[in-house]
Amino acid sequence: MEIQKDKKILIVGLGLLGGSYAQSLTRQGYEVYAITRKQSTIDYALEHGMIKAGTTQIDEKMIADADIAVFALYPHIFIEWIEQNGKYFKKGAIITDVTGVKCGIVDKIQALLPEGVEFIGAHPMAGKEVYGIENSNEEMFKGANYIVTPTEKNSREAVEICKELGRMLGFGNVTELTPQKHDRMIGFLSQLTHCIAVALMTCNDDANLCKYTGDSFRDLTRIARINEDMWSELFMLNKDILISEMKAFGGELEKLRRAMETDDVETMKKMMRVSTERRAMFDKK
Amino acid sequence: MEIQKDKKILIVGLGLLGGSYAQSLTRQGYEVYAITRKQSTIDYALEHGMIKAGTTQIDEKMIADADIAVFALYPHIFIEWIEQNGKYFKKGAIITDVTGVKCGIVDKIQALLPEGVEFIGAHPMAGKEVYGIENSNEEMFKGANYIVTPTEKNSREAVEICKELGRMLGFGNVTELTPQKHDRMIGFLSQLTHCIAVALMTCNDDANLCKYTGDSFRDLTRIARINEDMWSELFMLNKDILISEMKAFGGELEKLRRAMETDDVETMKKMMRVSTERRAMFDKK
Repeated sequence: MEIQKDKKILIVGLGLLGGSYAQSLTRQGYEVYAITRKQSTIDYALEHGMIKAGTTQIDEKMIADADIAVFALYPHIFIEWIEQNGKYFKKGAIITDVTGVKCGIVDKIQALLPEGVEFIGAHPMAGKEVYGIENSNEEMFKGANYIVTPTEKNSREAVEICKELGRMLGFGNVTELTPQKHDRMIGFLSQLTHCIAVALMTCNDDANLCKYTGDSFRDLTRIARINEDMWSELFMLNKDILISEMKAFGGELEKLRRAMETDDVETMKKMMRVSTERRAMFDKK
Repeated sequence: MEIQKDKKILIVGLGLLGGSYAQSLTRQGYEVYAITRKQSTIDYALEHGMIKAGTTQIDEKMIADADIAVFALYPHIFIEWIEQNGKYFKKGAIITDVTGVKCGIVDKIQALLPEGVEFIGAHPMAGKEVYGIENSNEEMFKGANYIVTPTEKNSREAVEICKELGRMLGFGNVTELTPQKHDRMIGFLSQLTHCIAVALMTCNDDANLCKYTGDSFRDLTRIARINEDMWSELFMLNKDILISEMKAFGGELEKLRRAMETDDVETMKKMMRVSTERRAMFDKK
């Protein structure tokens, strides 16, 4: 399935991700429009040829003209926006997003949209530790995962268009998961690891340590630089799963510590062997 | 202080690190000798021009001829070796090592060596997740930390020779720490992070997750591929410090989890802000 070049694409929220989407889609010949909070962002996008037109207002015509709309907003702002303006979309419009949690979002958005306007959740698993349109760069999608989370309310056609969007943006691996499976996966692979990085930073305040930091420690804590508004919102939306992952991880760490305390070297070695074997599965294929 | 080119250097243990030392020092014009466990390792080193001569035996003359000796062995084997063969070193010989823990090692080795033979502990903070001389490569020292851990028993001259060795090998940052400060630093920056990576691998056995792994998760768990014999030995040698670091980290993780459980978003955000600020100090200068 190809997305025809005369389709009009609206991006709501021109940050790091929204900006990178705009850059890529404009370069590929689509008419890209944008609604975002700050005029300076629109100016930047226009100057850099990333969009055809943009506004900080709710432009009913721009919304009604969109064939495809991508939302790159904080979750609660996304929901509010659809509550207030979802009614302006035309029948047949396809709406997707970039939100990092799905269960608290997909059902709500689908329920809020008018008949004939489809929402298919998507999670582009790409990002940087920097923000804003100035840092946007379509290169960051290369080889990354793009996960589409349809429900039984979605048509096959809309799901395929959503997946094609991911491929067009350059994602290496475009797959489908239910919102539930997505949130379980992301709770372990992404959210738990961010929690670990944060706790590692807050548990030791010795500033002298920086002098001796190696690359392993830098790699491990790269994600400790964290946007607290966005991540606290994502954590709370997936709280039950994340809490259970934190408990499972904390239990294993305690098992390792107990083994040390009791000189139980065999248990330590066994955990290390399991770790080594399991880690091999995660190598890039 | 320069290390004169006519100095004979003995390397005991030709693995990843020992092999990389041999490669670099031979290239720079030193006579490098080696004692190691397997004949195939000696053969490899000779074929690749990494050493002048080597043996799997205890060659008393080779030991007595050494001006500088570097030990790259497991800690307990290092101690046994010195117990049995330390007497063969000549007066004025300078001995150093690559062991990742210092408190349980430095005093013991210094006490075992004959009068006039100096041991200065050193920790080259470089490594890979692979082993053996076949993977050795002096490039891995570039920009890394080399920490020398002298005691009041060491002469200034020997300490300077040891530091010069680190600079010659290409380390970017050659510093001194007491064995105690070294072990505290390494307990947090290296050992705790290895424990975290292991627990992260053992706490979830869902093989499907690999499909969705992003680079953040790969970075975080690169060190989960771990040599269980070496690391369990290093952990046990630094057990008191490591246990206390694990408790401090576990406490912060629990604090974050409790904040989630009680919808205390302000505490979560505060921890994230501290994390973000502190992580900025660890960026490469």
